[in-house]
Amino acid sequence: MKKLVLAYSGGLDTSYCAKYLSKDKGFEVHAVSVNTGGFPQEEIDRIHKKALELGATSYTSIDAVQTFYEQVVKYLIYGNVLKNNTYPLSVSAERIVQAIEIVNHAKKIGAKYIAHGSTGAGNDQVRFDMIFQIVAPEIEIITPIRDNKLSREVEIEYLKSNGVDYPWEKAKYSINRGLWGTSVGGDETLTSHKPLPDHAFPSQLQETEPTQIKLTFHKGELIALDGDNDTPVNNIVKLEALASKYAIGRDIHVGDTIIGIKGRVGFEAPASLIIIKAHHLLEKHTLSKWQQFQKEQQASFYGMLLHEGNYMDEVMRNIEAFLTDTQRNVSGDVFVTLHPYRFELDGISSPHDLMNASFGSYGEMNEDWTADDAKGFIKILSNPGKIYNHVNQQDD
Amino acid sequence: MKKLVLAYSGGLDTSYCAKYLSKDKGFEVHAVSVNTGGFPQEEIDRIHKKALELGATSYTSIDAVQTFYEQVVKYLIYGNVLKNNTYPLSVSAERIVQAIEIVNHAKKIGAKYIAHGSTGAGNDQVRFDMIFQIVAPEIEIITPIRDNKLSREVEIEYLKSNGVDYPWEKAKYSINRGLWGTSVGGDETLTSHKPLPDHAFPSQLQETEPTQIKLTFHKGELIALDGDNDTPVNNIVKLEALASKYAIGRDIHVGDTIIGIKGRVGFEAPASLIIIKAHHLLEKHTLSKWQQFQKEQQASFYGMLLHEGNYMDEVMRNIEAFLTDTQRNVSGDVFVTLHPYRFELDGISSPHDLMNASFGSYGEMNEDWTADDAKGFIKILSNPGKIYNHVNQQDD
Amino acid sequence: MKKLVLAYSGGLDTSYCAKYLSKDKGFEVHAVSVNTGGFPQEEIDRIHKKALELGATSYTSIDAVQTFYEQVVKYLIYGNVLKNNTYPLSVSAERIVQAIEIVNHAKKIGAKYIAHGSTGAGNDQVRFDMIFQIVAPEIEIITPIRDNKLSREVEIEYLKSNGVDYPWEKAKYSINRGLWGTSVGGDETLTSHKPLPDHAFPSQLQETEPTQIKLTFHKGELIALDGDNDTPVNNIVKLEALASKYAIGRDIHVGDTIIGIKGRVGFEAPASLIIIKAHHLLEKHTLSKWQQFQKEQQASFYGMLLHEGNYMDEVMRNIEAFLTDTQRNVSGDVFVTLHPYRFELDGISSPHDLMNASFGSYGEMNEDWTADDAKGFIKILSNPGKIYNHVNQQDD
Amino acid sequence: MKKLVLAYSGGLDTSYCAKYLSKDKGFEVHAVSVNTGGFPQEEIDRIHKKALELGATSYTSIDAVQTFYEQVVKYLIYGNVLKNNTYPLSVSAERIVQAIEIVNHAKKIGAKYIAHGSTGAGNDQVRFDMIFQIVAPEIEIITPIRDNKLSREVEIEYLKSNGVDYPWEKAKYSINRGLWGTSVGGDETLTSHKPLPDHAFPSQLQETEPTQIKLTFHKGELIALDGDNDTPVNNIVKLEALASKYAIGRDIHVGDTIIGIKGRVGFEAPASLIIIKAHHLLEKHTLSKWQQFQKEQQASFYGMLLHEGNYMDEVMRNIEAFLTDTQRNVSGDVFVTLHPYRFELDGISSPHDLMNASFGSYGEMNEDWTADDAKGFIKILSNPGKIYNHVNQQDD
Repeated sequence: MKKLVLAYSGGLDTSYCAKYLSKDKGFEVHAVSVNTGGFPQEEIDRIHKKALELGATSYTSIDAVQTFYEQVVKYLIYGNVLKNNTYPLSVSAERIVQAIEIVNHAKKIGAKYIAHGSTGAGNDQVRFDMIFQIVAPEIEIITPIRDNKLSREVEIEYLKSNGVDYPWEKAKYSINRGLWGTSVGGDETLTSHKPLPDHAFPSQLQETEPTQIKLTFHKGELIALDGDNDTPVNNIVKLEALASKYAIGRDIHVGDTIIGIKGRVGFEAPASLIIIKAHHLLEKHTLSKWQQFQKEQQASFYGMLLHEGNYMDEVMRNIEAFLTDTQRNVSGDVFVTLHPYRFELDGISSPHDLMNASFGSYGEMNEDWTADDAKGFIKILSNPGKIYNHVNQQDD
Repeated sequence: MKKLVLAYSGGLDTSYCAKYLSKDKGFEVHAVSVNTGGFPQEEIDRIHKKALELGATSYTSIDAVQTFYEQVVKYLIYGNVLKNNTYPLSVSAERIVQAIEIVNHAKKIGAKYIAHGSTGAGNDQVRFDMIFQIVAPEIEIITPIRDNKLSREVEIEYLKSNGVDYPWEKAKYSINRGLWGTSVGGDETLTSHKPLPDHAFPSQLQETEPTQIKLTFHKGELIALDGDNDTPVNNIVKLEALASKYAIGRDIHVGDTIIGIKGRVGFEAPASLIIIKAHHLLEKHTLSKWQQFQKEQQASFYGMLLHEGNYMDEVMRNIEAFLTDTQRNVSGDVFVTLHPYRFELDGISSPHDLMNASFGSYGEMNEDWTADDAKGFIKILSNPGKIYNHVNQQDD
Repeated sequence: MKKLVLAYSGGLDTSYCAKYLSKDKGFEVHAVSVNTGGFPQEEIDRIHKKALELGATSYTSIDAVQTFYEQVVKYLIYGNVLKNNTYPLSVSAERIVQAIEIVNHAKKIGAKYIAHGSTGAGNDQVRFDMIFQIVAPEIEIITPIRDNKLSREVEIEYLKSNGVDYPWEKAKYSINRGLWGTSVGGDETLTSHKPLPDHAFPSQLQETEPTQIKLTFHKGELIALDGDNDTPVNNIVKLEALASKYAIGRDIHVGDTIIGIKGRVGFEAPASLIIIKAHHLLEKHTLSKWQQFQKEQQASFYGMLLHEGNYMDEVMRNIEAFLTDTQRNVSGDVFVTLHPYRFELDGISSPHDLMNASFGSYGEMNEDWTADDAKGFIKILSNPGKIYNHVNQQDD
Repeated sequence: MKKLVLAYSGGLDTSYCAKYLSKDKGFEVHAVSVNTGGFPQEEIDRIHKKALELGATSYTSIDAVQTFYEQVVKYLIYGNVLKNNTYPLSVSAERIVQAIEIVNHAKKIGAKYIAHGSTGAGNDQVRFDMIFQIVAPEIEIITPIRDNKLSREVEIEYLKSNGVDYPWEKAKYSINRGLWGTSVGGDETLTSHKPLPDHAFPSQLQETEPTQIKLTFHKGELIALDGDNDTPVNNIVKLEALASKYAIGRDIHVGDTIIGIKGRVGFEAPASLIIIKAHHLLEKHTLSKWQQFQKEQQASFYGMLLHEGNYMDEVMRNIEAFLTDTQRNVSGDVFVTLHPYRFELDGISSPHDLMNASFGSYGEMNEDWTADDAKGFIKILSNPGKIYNHVNQQDD
C-alpha cells in the first residue's frame, strides 16, 4: 500500500485530507503533528483520536519545541530579528521546523508521499514544499486543498457523507499559537486601515500593577528569569505567561509574502518582543559599534530568508556561525518593567558592559585624552571633507 | 579688532566664553544662537540681553527651523531613521544645522574666528569643528572650555569678579530641546541600570482618554494632521503638543559616541517617533520588498554618518537623492491612536496601497494564478537547494 | 484575426514559430526584431525578407541602441557593474530593453498576443515573460518552443514540409552580439574545466603594438575617445572596434541563473571592460571613501536584479537616482594602454582629482596637521578597542 | 634603565632611532624585526649586525610568516579580498601582524616603551599605534621621526657625527616585500597620471611560454600546487617564484588612507592575485548565490577595517567565523594558464561543483521541471510588479 505522511492539525482542511486520502485515494495515511510550542496535551489527545477516526493508520505527535529553539529561535534572538522592524517571525519560523520534522519522519518510516493542507495562496505551501523537495526530492507531495480549491461547505459535506460529523465551527479569527508567539488573522487584517479589536487577541489584560523583572542572559541565551535558572525554552514559556497578563506584545505585521503580494497579520508575542528588546539593549552595552552595524545587516537578511522558507540555503549556516560568534560577551542582567499593554527597558548590569568601564563617562573629561588629542582627532577626521571642498568648491 | 563669532546659548559655559573672549582676549565677539525649534521668543530676548551685557558687540538669533527640516529632518523621516532602532537623532541632527548656520554667519560678517563652548569629551565638538573646518578652513576655532577644562565654580567666580552675577543654578538634568525632540541627560543616565524617573521628562501625563488621530503624508512629507493642511514643520509642532500630553515618546538611547566610548541619554520625542512609525507603516503598504530592503540599509548608514558629524560627505547627498526617489508613492493617511505613554498604529489608507489591490487578498486564491503555477514556482525556487543537497549530501 | 507580435531573430526557433503560428495556429504574425547593437543593416534586411517568406504579415526592426544605453548601459557604467566581478551583463541587459520595446510595440499595434522562442530552461524566458506580464498583463504569451520541447530536427522537418528550406547550419558556438558585448556559449562552456579555444571568440588578434588611448568622461559618461567628442554610444562602438583588434576582453562567466542552476558562458567585451575599469579608476580619484563603499553595495545589488529580469522593480529607479547623483564630479581623462589580450590603466587627469590637491601628498608631512594631531587622532581612534580589552581581558 | 623595544628594519629612519634613543635618550634599546615573508636570512644577519653597531642592547628577528598566514592571509583568501577591487592589501596586512608581534615581545621582556620609525603622514603609524595602545595601554609609544620631522640629510649627518657611516643610498622607489606581495612607491606614484615603468618592479619577465598550472584548495586553503602537497605558506612562496617570472600581478592601487587623503601605490603580487582569482572561481562553482552575495559584502568590509588598522575590533573575529564557515565545500582543483604579464582561469574540477551535477545543464531542458513549472514560476515572480503597475499606473 502507498505509505503517506500527512501533516495533520485536527482542523477541517487536514481532516478532509485524512479521510479523502485514506478512503478515496487508497493511501496508508500516517498522520503527524509537530508541536512547536502551541499544543497542550489534551489537544494532542483530541487530535490523535480524530486522526484515527478519520482513517489514519497511525498518528504521531512530535515534540519539536527544543529543536525549534535550538535551530531557529536562538538565532532570532542573537540577531534581534523583527521582520520589518515589527514581527518576530513567530509562524514563519515554526513552519520550517515542522517541515523538517515531517520530512524526516517520512524518510524514517519509508513513506513515498507527504501530504499537507495548505492552499495555493499562502506562504506555508512554499515553506513546506521547498524543504520537502530539498531534503527528500524522491518523495511526492500531495496537496488536495491546493489542487481542488474546495470550499469549507464542500469539505464538511464530504466528511458528513463519509460519516464524520464534527462541529466545524468557523472561528472569526484564525489563530496560530507557538513558542515564539501567536498569530491572529481575519476580518480586520484583510483591510489596510482597521486594527484588531481587543477581544481578537488570545490574552486579555489581567494585571495593571507595574512590576520589574530581571532577564539574565549568558552568551545571548536567556538562562534565568528573576534569578531562577532554567532552560531558555522554559524561561520563554514562563515569561510569556507573566507578560501576557499585561496584554503586552500585540501588533500588526504588514509584509511581503513569498508569492509577491502584501499580507497583514496580527500577533501577540509578549515573550519574543521583551526578550529581543532586552537582548538588544544588552548588546548596545557589550558590542562594538561595528559589531552592531554588521549584525543588523546580517540578521535582517537572515530574517528575510527564513521568512521566505529559504532556511536550507547554506548561507543561513554561515550567518548562524557569525551570529553565534558575536554572542561571546553578551552576558548579564536586563531590567524590564511590565505595564499594561507595554514594557519599559530600565537598564542592564554586565561584567562586559563597555559603558561602565573605569575608563570614563561620556561627556566628562578624563585622563585618557586631552583637549589637544580631541582637536587632532577632529582635524584629521576633517581631511577628506576639506580636500573635497577645496577641490570642488569652484563648481558650486 | 579680531572679529569672532561665538555660538551662544545663554548658559554658563558660553557666557563665560563671551566675557573671557571679549574682555581678556580682546576679540570683537558676535554672539549667535541658532534656533532649531527649541527657543521661544522670550528666551531669545533673554539670551540677547545677556550677550550684550557680557560684552558681545552684537547678537544674532538665526531661525533655522525650516532649514533644519529641509536639510535633515525630512530625510530622517524618508529613511525612518532611528539610531540603534531607538533614537530619532534629535540633538545630533540639530548640531549639524547649527554649525552650518554659524559658519555661514561668520563668513558673511568676515569673522576670522569662531568660538564654541563644547568640552573635549563629547560629540558636539566633533560635529562643530568638522563642519567649521570643512566649510571654512581659513577660520580659526577657539574653545576655551575644552582647552582650559574649567569647573563650574571657576567660571562662576570669574564672571562674578567681572561684575556678572546671574543665578547659575545647576539643573539636575541637562535638557536640550529642538524640533525633532528633547534630550535629557544626567544622574541615572550616567549609570547602566537606572531608568530616568518620570519627573525628569519635560512633559507630564495630562490626558488619559485614548484618541485616534490621522496623519496625512504626501511623497513622504507630513502635510496634514487630522485633515488640517499645514507645513510639515507646523504639523510636527502641533503633533508634539498633542502627543506630549500623553507622555508618549520617552526612551533611553545607548550608543557609541564619535570619540569611541559608550554614552546613554534619555529623550522625549513623541512627534518624531509617531511620525517615523506612521511613515514606516505607510511604506510597508506602498513600497516593494526590495525598496524596503535597500532603504533600511541606506538609511541606517545615513543615520550613522549624520550622528558622527559626517554630514558634509558627498555620500550623504547621494543617499538623499536615493531616499527622495523612494518617496514617489508614499502618500496617504495613517491612523494612530494615542494612549497614555504609548501609541498604536491602527492602519492606513492610500491610493498607492499595494495590499488593497483588486489583485487579491493574501491567503485567498484568486484568478491570477493556479495551484499549478504555485507548484511550478516552488519547484523552481527549490532548484538551488536540491542541487546543493544532491552534490554535497555524501559528505554529511 | 488574432494579432500576434513575434520576437523574431531570423534563427531556426523563431522561424519555426513564425510559420507555425501563422499557418497552423491562425495568428496574424507581426515579426519584430530589436537591435541593441549587434545587427548590421544587411542582416536586418535578411531577417525582414525571411520573416515575410515565413508568413509574417509585417516585419519591424526597432533600433533600440540609444534606448539601451540610456536605460541600462549608462547605469552599469556608473555602477562599475561586473556580475560576480567578471561579467558586464551584456546579454542580460539587452533582453530587458528588447522585452520593453516588444511589449510597447504590441500595445501600439493592438496585439493581444506576444510570442517568443525561448526554451523553459534559461534566463531569457524569465526576463521576457516578467516584463510582458508586468507592462501588459492583458496580453497572452505564446511560447511554442518552450511548450513543445521540439528538437532542431523536428523544426527543420516541419519547415521543409511547409516549403521552407533554408540552410540551418548548427554553429558550434551560440553567439549573441550587442552594444555591451558578445556572449559565446557551447561545447567547452558546458563543462566546468575547459576554457574556450581562441577561435571560438569572434575577434582575433590583429594588433600587437601597444598603444595608449585616452577616454574622456563627463559626469560618468564617455564623451570622447582620444580627444574626439562623440555620443557615448558611438564612443563605445569605436572603442570596441579598436580594442577587439587586441583580442582584449575575453573571459568566462560562471553564475547563478534565475531558475537556480549554475551556468557558464564565455564572452568578449573589450569596450565594456575597458570603460568600466577606466571609469572605476576615475572614481577612485574623485569620490569619497564612503561614496565608493555605498556605490559598491548598491551597484552589486542593481546588477543582481537586472540579471534576474527584475528591472521593473521601483528599487531600480531609486538606485539609478543614487548612482546618477554620485557622478557629479566623475569627469576627466583616463589613460589606458592596449596590449595583446590585456590592457593597463596608466592613470587619470581630472579637475576633481582628490589626490592631486595642493593639500599634500600621501606619506609626506605638510602644513595641515602636526605629529601631535596624528597622535591625538590615533589615540581617540583606539578608544573602543582599549575599553573593550580593558573590560574583557579577564576572560581571555 | 628604561627598556625600549624598537621596531627595526635596518633602514635610515630606524637606524637613526636606534642610535638616538640609545645614546641621546638613554634607553636600553631592544631592536626587533618581524619577518612576514620578505626577509632572506642574509638580510636578517645584516640587520642584526647593524642594530648592535648602532647601540642596541639586543636584536631579535621574529619569524611571523606562519602567524601572518593563519591570522590574516587565510581570511583574505576566504573573502577574495581585493581593496577597491585591485589591491591584495599586502602591506596593510603585514603591519598588523608585525605590530602584534612587537607589542607581545615588549610585554614579554617587560619593556615600558615601544619605538617605531613611522612619520605622521601615513597609514603605518595608525596601524602600529592602535594595536600597541589596545593591547598594552600601559606602554608608551616613542616616535622620533614623526615628532621631529627630520630630513634624510639631518639623519645621515647625525649618524655620521656619531661615527656611523653606512652608504645610505636613496632608492628611487621605496619597496616593501612580504609573503602577500611587494609594494612599490615613488616618483610616478606621486602623480595621478603616470604608470610605473617596467624596471620599477622587482621582478622582470623571464618566461614567455604559456604554461598551465593546477591549484588545489581544501576548504579554501591552497594545499597543493601542480599536485604537490605542501603547507599553504610554502605553496604561496612557490607560486610567487613561478608566476613572477611571467611578470604577472603588477598594478597600481589608488585608495583612501586612514588619515583621509588619497594615496597611490604600485605593487607586484602575482601569487595573491592568482590565488584570490582562482579561489573566487572555485567559489562560483561551489557556493550558493546568497553565500556569494553575503560574502562579498562581509569581505569588503573586513578588508576596509583591516586596511585601516582596525584588526582588533571584535567584529573582525565574527566575520572570520562567518568566512571560515563558508569554506566547508570550497575544495577542488583550479586550472590557470600563465602568460607574460597576465593569467587566464581555465576552469575547475570539484566534487562540490554545483554546475556539473547530474541535475542538468544550463539552457537545456531536463526532467526536473516542465515548461508549465517555468511558466508558473515566472507568473508568480511577476506578482509584485504586476500589482505595483496596476495600482500606480494611473499616475504615470
